[in-house]
Amino acid sequence: KRRYNITLLPGDGIGPEVISVAKNVLNLAASVEGIEFKFNEKLTGGAALDATGVPLPEETLAAAKQSDAVLLGAIGGYKWDKNEKHLKPETGLLQLREGLEVFANLRPTSVLPQLVDASTLKKEVAEGVNLMVVRELTGGIYFGKPRGFGTNENGEEIGFNTEVYAAYEIDRIARIAFETARKRSGKLCSVDKANVLEASMFWRKRVIAIAEEYPDVELSHMYVDNAAMQLIRNPKQFDTIVTNNIFGDILSDEASMITGSIGMLPSASLGASGPGLFEPIHGSAPDIAGQDKANPLATILSAAMLLKYGLGEVKAAERIELAVLDTLNRGFRTGDIYSAGNKLVGCKEIGEEVLKSV
Amino acid sequence: KRRYNITLLPGDGIGPEVISVAKNVLNLAASVEGIEFKFNEKLTGGAALDATGVPLPEETLAAAKQSDAVLLGAIGGYKWDKNEKHLKPETGLLQLREGLEVFANLRPTSVLPQLVDASTLKKEVAEGVNLMVVRELTGGIYFGKPRGFGTNENGEEIGFNTEVYAAYEIDRIARIAFETARKRSGKLCSVDKANVLEASMFWRKRVIAIAEEYPDVELSHMYVDNAAMQLIRNPKQFDTIVTNNIFGDILSDEASMITGSIGMLPSASLGASGPGLFEPIHGSAPDIAGQDKANPLATILSAAMLLKYGLGEVKAAERIELAVLDTLNRGFRTGDIYSAGNKLVGCKEIGEEVLKSV
Ligand SMILES: CC(C)[C@H](C(=O)O)[C@@H](O)C(=O)O
Ligand SMILES: CC(C)[C@H](C(=O)O)[C@@H](O)C(=O)O
Repeated sequence: KRRYNITLLPGDGIGPEVISVAKNVLNLAASVEGIEFKFNEKLTGGAALDATGVPLPEETLAAAKQSDAVLLGAIGGYKWDKNEKHLKPETGLLQLREGLEVFANLRPTSVLPQLVDASTLKKEVAEGVNLMVVRELTGGIYFGKPRGFGTNENGEEIGFNTEVYAAYEIDRIARIAFETARKRSGKLCSVDKANVLEASMFWRKRVIAIAEEYPDVELSHMYVDNAAMQLIRNPKQFDTIVTNNIFGDILSDEASMITGSIGMLPSASLGASGPGLFEPIHGSAPDIAGQDKANPLATILSAAMLLKYGLGEVKAAERIELAVLDTLNRGFRTGDIYSAGNKLVGCKEIGEEVLKSV
Repeated sequence: KRRYNITLLPGDGIGPEVISVAKNVLNLAASVEGIEFKFNEKLTGGAALDATGVPLPEETLAAAKQSDAVLLGAIGGYKWDKNEKHLKPETGLLQLREGLEVFANLRPTSVLPQLVDASTLKKEVAEGVNLMVVRELTGGIYFGKPRGFGTNENGEEIGFNTEVYAAYEIDRIARIAFETARKRSGKLCSVDKANVLEASMFWRKRVIAIAEEYPDVELSHMYVDNAAMQLIRNPKQFDTIVTNNIFGDILSDEASMITGSIGMLPSASLGASGPGLFEPIHGSAPDIAGQDKANPLATILSAAMLLKYGLGEVKAAERIELAVLDTLNRGFRTGDIYSAGNKLVGCKEIGEEVLKSV
């Protein structure tokens, strides 16, 4: 038997509900494929704040680092929105990404035939969309220094941040993106604002340099404002997109909404070595927390990414992916993806159905 | 007769074609309303680079400053894409914005009933969209210092920019946004990334402070990644959006694409005093330049904004707006907005039709 330690970080809002369902699915798929998991549940985000006073307790980071992969539910909520920076749930997530050095965030977006009607885009525009955003996750304006509050030379109060990228940071994310594109359609689009920002000019220069290692991948460049338009105009033109932390935050969320069903979308955050971090792209949805209404499929699909990208357990991953499709084909839907003619179920029940399909 | 000096900056690509048409429309609407224009045409962007070696000749900026309003076509093109920063056409545009101190960029997006089919969004999602993005235009990461290239403490090459806002910069754009919202539906959404960036936390703090002056306007806040999603999910939830320079660049382009017809969308850039800068939001479209295929309606509508916001000539502005609608109602379409059953015409011909409707 292959044995792995998995850190579970349920987090806030609907996090605990979707993690509990995903854990069962992981366990079953694993046992069928001869894998054994040891789960270690830890506090993070608002839950950690309330219990320990910090959004990422040392114990949580230590456990995560020692494990083989980390599965996270969701973090944040209105309750902590006005907290100071170091006491925000989001800060815990950023510390976790930094602590695990997971610099590459992979966000696949595909419009499933079963759910194409959920898109607010016209059917002919949405159907067949299948793209991957590779977002740099541990650099740029999220982490750049100097940052903070102060006064300028005229004594005016200011708030400021630094967008900064070093060559090695761009090179390593570019390589992940080229590898990703190579395994997909062989087309990579690098998104920047090189007509205005030096950080983007440097980004583009390094991406072009790394491209020499990947002569089989077709590289293009697009300005971020144009990319935001093209994702609506014709999302099918994209296969793999690579971009910096903040543009990736914006564009990957925009891209995900093309599906109309962000309750379906997983993500993987990977480093050079060490455990990866896997989480649904949706938020903690405090308005429906604890009501058994959440859609756990994004977390279940994140568990599949954990198996595939985190542990190299491709067969178990595919088993879960197929189980999710089978559940959809059998007509089960949570409220967020419900349409007439299907069966409306809650978080737990759709989880049971996925288990049947595993 | 009321007399005004207008600086015309045709710029690059399709710029000269659309400006020439818009000039005729301006002239006719003016003469009907008892206005007289003196036009002064100057070089900018790539055209200025080729002729003078710089993207914004001093003479152009001086003329613009002395005039009552500036109408710009478009700037940029593949030809200059690899130029160094100070020799990029875009740099000329940024220098112009900075030189005129036009800190408030107003970008209206509305889906016209005549063109609702041009949207890639479903009809029920797109129809009735009518929103205004108020983008800060002379601050933030576009202009912040320090910026450039260098090495970090490990001797690694880096590229960097500074996102910085001073209180007065936020306060003045917030006031414009509140005034704008007040004249519209009374709803203002401020977009930031205050869960991560200090510059955004400061932005939010100042916007909330200024809100006290506008108790009749309903203020909400949204993170930029969520805003990028919500614009696709349900654009009708928005009326007026205010945001910083870079988020405004991205979101206003995204919002404009909701219409599917960016050849229709104008913009106004205003300062505290001095001439405003008016331009279509589309680019220079080098691929169709000189072929009489461009859609001049965005520039014509920018001329209407010039009359309204720049000169306070509301009647002449409305005359132009109605003429554009009348031309559409009569079935005239350029290629970018063509649909079966209408009359496909070129840039000049649709301009002639607008003149008939003025
Ligand atoms: C919660 C927030 C800090 C985070 C981010 O901005 O990275 C989220 O939006 C995401 O994309 O995972
Ligand atoms: C051309 C470019 C510098 C400009 C910007 O980023 O402001 C353009 O995209 C715009 O939005 O007017």
